[in-house]
Amino acid sequence: MVDILHRVGVRAAGPEKVYEALTEVDALAGWWTTETSGSGVPGGELRFRFPPVGGFDMDVLEAVPDKRVVWRVADGPEEWIGTTVEWDLRQDGGWTVVLFRHAGWREPVEFMHHCSTKWATFLLSLKALVETGRGAPAPGDVQISDWH
Amino acid sequence: MVDILHRVGVRAAGPEKVYEALTEVDALAGWWTTETSGSGVPGGELRFRFPPVGGFDMDVLEAVPDKRVVWRVADGPEEWIGTTVEWDLRQDGGWTVVLFRHAGWREPVEFMHHCSTKWATFLLSLKALVETGRGAPAPGDVQISDWH
Repeated sequence: MVDILHRVGVRAAGPEKVYEALTEVDALAGWWTTETSGSGVPGGELRFRFPPVGGFDMDVLEAVPDKRVVWRVADGPEEWIGTTVEWDLRQDGGWTVVLFRHAGWREPVEFMHHCSTKWATFLLSLKALVETGRGAPAPGDVQISDWH
Repeated sequence: MVDILHRVGVRAAGPEKVYEALTEVDALAGWWTTETSGSGVPGGELRFRFPPVGGFDMDVLEAVPDKRVVWRVADGPEEWIGTTVEWDLRQDGGWTVVLFRHAGWREPVEFMHHCSTKWATFLLSLKALVETGRGAPAPGDVQISDWH
């Protein structure tokens, strides 16, 4: 089992603002994909779509206000199913530190390399959304390769 | 042992251009840090500095033209020493695909999360350098957090 790890810091915003951006559909649509629907509370399901290539359905396993969010992938690319996406938040001076883990990949396939780099760009989109009010969600996301 | 993985595609440039950017000091200085010195050939040592916080010395273990480059960290932060940084290149249509692996971390520490995200930004800097002639090396690199 192998994991994708990332860390960003969001400046001049408390963990509650980042937590909102991970649990409220309108805010999720502001940094990951504009086509987001569902519910970000524990027991809810979030649906993220990236036309024309598909998307992800996530079961919300945990949502502890201002501290931690965990999703489990219920549907999407075969390599993603059953993996978990984990977010830990903490305040550190004037920053909210975001620790990210996309855990439980079965093999370090080429698609995992791609997803790791894409997650970095989406974490920077999340940071920009909270700091400036403007992220870069799909379909206006950063293109990193032939795989988009 | 845990690894950082990434994948980017460089548009409209052959693997030889990316290989240059991984082995020639002037080109390395154009995407990672302006303070780069040494030699990128097998048996050489590359020195990357990020004033005021230190840097990395890398032994060049492999450099196979247009295909593969491997460095081993000889000096730098304690967590990096002995790890390897591996680059695999291949042409795929109009793209050069870059597979990146920073392998052999002993523990998935918070610093590893940070380095994973920073590597993504530097890979996009490498892509920009080869595609446009202009990367974003330190000290003008993308700031992602309180840890820079």
